Amino acid sequence: MAVRNLPVDADRLWSDIMALAAITDPARPYTRRSFTPLFLEGRAWLAKRFAEAGLAVHIDTAGNLIGRLDGRDPARGTIAVGSHSDTVPSGGRFDGIAGVATGLEVVRALRDAGIQLDHHIEVIDFLAEEPSEYGLSCVGSRGMAGVLDPDMLALTEPGGEALGNALRRVGGDPERLADARRTDIKAFIELHIEQGVRLESRSLAAGIVTAIVGIRRIEIVFEGEADHAGTTPMELRRDALVAAAETVVCVRRVSEQMAARGHGYFVATVGVLTAKPGASNIVPGHCRLIVDIRSSVPELTEEFVAAIDAASKAHAESARAVRSAFKKLSDGPQVACDPDLCEILRQAAQRLDIPATDLVSGAGHDAAFMSRICPSAMVFVPSRGGKSHAPEEWTEREEIAAGAAVILEAVKALDASLPRGG
Amino acid sequence: MAVRNLPVDADRLWSDIMALAAITDPARPYTRRSFTPLFLEGRAWLAKRFAEAGLAVHIDTAGNLIGRLDGRDPARGTIAVGSHSDTVPSGGRFDGIAGVATGLEVVRALRDAGIQLDHHIEVIDFLAEEPSEYGLSCVGSRGMAGVLDPDMLALTEPGGEALGNALRRVGGDPERLADARRTDIKAFIELHIEQGVRLESRSLAAGIVTAIVGIRRIEIVFEGEADHAGTTPMELRRDALVAAAETVVCVRRVSEQMAARGHGYFVATVGVLTAKPGASNIVPGHCRLIVDIRSSVPELTEEFVAAIDAASKAHAESARAVRSAFKKLSDGPQVACDPDLCEILRQAAQRLDIPATDLVSGAGHDAAFMSRICPSAMVFVPSRGGKSHAPEEWTEREEIAAGAAVILEAVKALDASLPRGG
Repeated sequence: MAVRNLPVDADRLWSDIMALAAITDPARPYTRRSFTPLFLEGRAWLAKRFAEAGLAVHIDTAGNLIGRLDGRDPARGTIAVGSHSDTVPSGGRFDGIAGVATGLEVVRALRDAGIQLDHHIEVIDFLAEEPSEYGLSCVGSRGMAGVLDPDMLALTEPGGEALGNALRRVGGDPERLADARRTDIKAFIELHIEQGVRLESRSLAAGIVTAIVGIRRIEIVFEGEADHAGTTPMELRRDALVAAAETVVCVRRVSEQMAARGHGYFVATVGVLTAKPGASNIVPGHCRLIVDIRSSVPELTEEFVAAIDAASKAHAESARAVRSAFKKLSDGPQVACDPDLCEILRQAAQRLDIPATDLVSGAGHDAAFMSRICPSAMVFVPSRGGKSHAPEEWTEREEIAAGAAVILEAVKALDASLPRGG
Repeated sequence: MAVRNLPVDADRLWSDIMALAAITDPARPYTRRSFTPLFLEGRAWLAKRFAEAGLAVHIDTAGNLIGRLDGRDPARGTIAVGSHSDTVPSGGRFDGIAGVATGLEVVRALRDAGIQLDHHIEVIDFLAEEPSEYGLSCVGSRGMAGVLDPDMLALTEPGGEALGNALRRVGGDPERLADARRTDIKAFIELHIEQGVRLESRSLAAGIVTAIVGIRRIEIVFEGEADHAGTTPMELRRDALVAAAETVVCVRRVSEQMAARGHGYFVATVGVLTAKPGASNIVPGHCRLIVDIRSSVPELTEEFVAAIDAASKAHAESARAVRSAFKKLSDGPQVACDPDLCEILRQAAQRLDIPATDLVSGAGHDAAFMSRICPSAMVFVPSRGGKSHAPEEWTEREEIAAGAAVILEAVKALDASLPRGG
């Protein structure tokens, strides 16, 4: 793509991303896990950059790093832009980081253009968006949305430290979590890499995220009989793996059909499958799998789960096994992004002549929790080859700048259009 | 079944089996792993019982415990009866043990009846028939057959001890292995539990094993792409587990068809399947499975492998994955038991009015290696529910006695009928 004369400084934005990416575990780039010394080093660097841009910096009680620039009219409330600076192990340079750096660049671009907003503007680095050793993702955005419960703070990592204590270590305050809950934010926008190939495959620069999928996880367990693989005739076997394999094939077939209908985003995956005892000379007597189901339409998820429920029962029966569990492990609801905010982003892209399309996010994001307390939306930028959570993660300098420009343009439009008061 | 007036002492035979079974790791009955102190304790008990029965006891250089009673005519050679006294972890009371105790009971029954054979008779407890930590099964019978190679002796258990050294610890001599190779044995008979339900389901007392299956193991590896389970649309996935699951289902379907033809024993099993990275939110990028194929007819194995080769290639393709390996891990040939010896066993069962049938063994046995150096055959006795390699393993007292009686009767017939000289 060739995007020129953008109202943001593509090189400055890029160099922030590269500088933050360089703060990594050298043995496994790019790794900056939440709550680690490297994470704190990254945040110290970010806080310095925030301050250089004229932002007042603080960490809220939920551990979010916030840079704030006051607006002309305190009654108008706050417009927020951000994402997260933590990574998965051996992750990439852009996931999360690009969104935080974009918030910072939006503020700098406004100042460069001599624009002071009526609204306050905040750049937010949410704490621990990625799943961590404490077993919880989106810690900071949950806190800001007021849904970080005490039992979540009691979660411990393998070494035994509770999440509440880890939160304290990074500057939060588990005793005063309620203070992190916000009511003054009028709009939240997050830039994120797509982590898929829909933009790249259509040579589009930006995706306006209209919804974030709901994610349901189902555990299915088949119990058969761990018989001798040599002496047990085929017609007497109770093979748990055969039942599980039939179900894996069925999950694929049914999910392809549902996705192909085009009535909403739909994907389903069996990512975990274990067969026990796992010896080449023993018929598997126990098999466990997890189905991950994501859709923008709750009815699709319900229909799919009902289909797999019936099918897996039949697969157990035909393998002479027993389906001993069909259990909902988790169920995060889909989130619709704010339609007005999406329209403002669409118009901003149009004004800048940046080719964009509506998309559904197949992954969870901080914006999903922010949507509980304010109109929220996201802008996706292309991921080369769809690669994500890997060192190969890549987005071009101009692509990130284009996404940031859309957000800058939208922030200006929002500042002019948002109704006064709450 | 009601078998009366057998020419063996069912109670004496049973009490030997129970006494040997009682020499077990108390924490996980019934465990007497080869090369362990418990194994040596079991063998010391056996050696004492052998001696009490008038047998001359020694351990050959391959570590086999042998009790020998000389015949009247040294030129006639030796008839041998035996099996093994080692167990798998948490195994049963009968697998192997019943065959060793049967050999001992046959000798005692001959003495009780005042019969001295022309042939020498030997009772053999083969060393380490079960797979052990050294990664090799049938150690002793391989040695007696002259096929225990020096590179096998170099195999080490996880603690680092080489099999050759372990062999020395139990009374063998790895430097003089050639001495264990026998040319004087004229017939070998092994009693073993069926480990299946073919006898039980037809209420038969004995199985005359006409063949021991060949066992081929094939490793299949599928490589796909470990993409994000939320952001990768169904039509772009390269899911290695979907390809593997299709292959598991296909292995089951094709093996059922081939077994149902009835042109020879055939079973095939996928006992090992691993999917990586094994996270619920990542499309599996790597999947490995092992197919265990057993048949009494080599052509069936060839036909099956060719079918799975073609099918698994197609499964990889339809899942947009790559089949990166289709590799023969091992290939043990099928073994035909000696037809004349089988006929002698059939006639012996008939004379004793013991209902018997011909069977193919789906498991490997010491008899398979013995068949390389002498006419060999086996008698199977029923396994309740087909259970084996588990504490639930069970055969009735009268069922073992019936099997032993068939062997005693056959030994007497052999002694009279075997041609003189080699």
